Amino acid sequence: MNITHIEHIGIAVKSIEESIKYYENILGLKCYAVEEVKEQKVKTAFFMVGQTKIELLESTDSEGPIGKFIEKKGEGIHHLAFAVNGIENALTESENKGVQLIDKTPRKGAEGLDIAFLHPKSTGGVLTELCEKRDKA
Amino acid sequence: MNITHIEHIGIAVKSIEESIKYYENILGLKCYAVEEVKEQKVKTAFFMVGQTKIELLESTDSEGPIGKFIEKKGEGIHHLAFAVNGIENALTESENKGVQLIDKTPRKGAEGLDIAFLHPKSTGGVLTELCEKRDKA
Repeated sequence: MNITHIEHIGIAVKSIEESIKYYENILGLKCYAVEEVKEQKVKTAFFMVGQTKIELLESTDSEGPIGKFIEKKGEGIHHLAFAVNGIENALTESENKGVQLIDKTPRKGAEGLDIAFLHPKSTGGVLTELCEKRDKA
Repeated sequence: MNITHIEHIGIAVKSIEESIKYYENILGLKCYAVEEVKEQKVKTAFFMVGQTKIELLESTDSEGPIGKFIEKKGEGIHHLAFAVNGIENALTESENKGVQLIDKTPRKGAEGLDIAFLHPKSTGGVLTELCEKRDKA
């Protein structure tokens, strides 16, 4: 697998509006986008920190994945996303090496990235996302 | 607060030896250092991913913080560490803005960094570390 950097860190929050205050006023970061991803039943907010984004995730439906996560574990880090070159090959290679995939083929995520998740059972408890930006200029 | 990038992501693992296999053989990252931090009762392993490190943390004592974390929550992401310029000022400013500090003054962490933790009660459930490299050449 060819990982170039950490694309983002996904953090489950109860209220994006409240959490943006912490990230902006305490940490001094700047929210540059708020986007709803209906398929995932989340509203997202993005901050750039060096080459990595922080992606806040607020559930828009208590039955969605973030709603369930917060109900079970509370607010906190939800997943870790690596930027890769060649996401299909990375998935094939991972599966061949025994990794359980949540997504066998990439789908569209926030910011137009192609994304796929590896199951935390195979990754030492870390819900792991692979991302690739395809529409490179 | 002046954050430059994400210094590292700390991940609690049961066995560094086993976890290194996943990070090297599946993710294709390279472990460049293994270090014991006796004060924290952990053994650490480091991987560079772009400008950010992944720090695996194995407890050397079930009564240490990582041992307790794994007992309660299982393996997974433990903390998020930001590189800052001016760690003392960052701590003073955070406390003045109502953030609960775990470390009121910086202490030495792995790799010789000055580090201090903010309490997850004040950071939306994310155990947050501030780090500064002082012995810059």
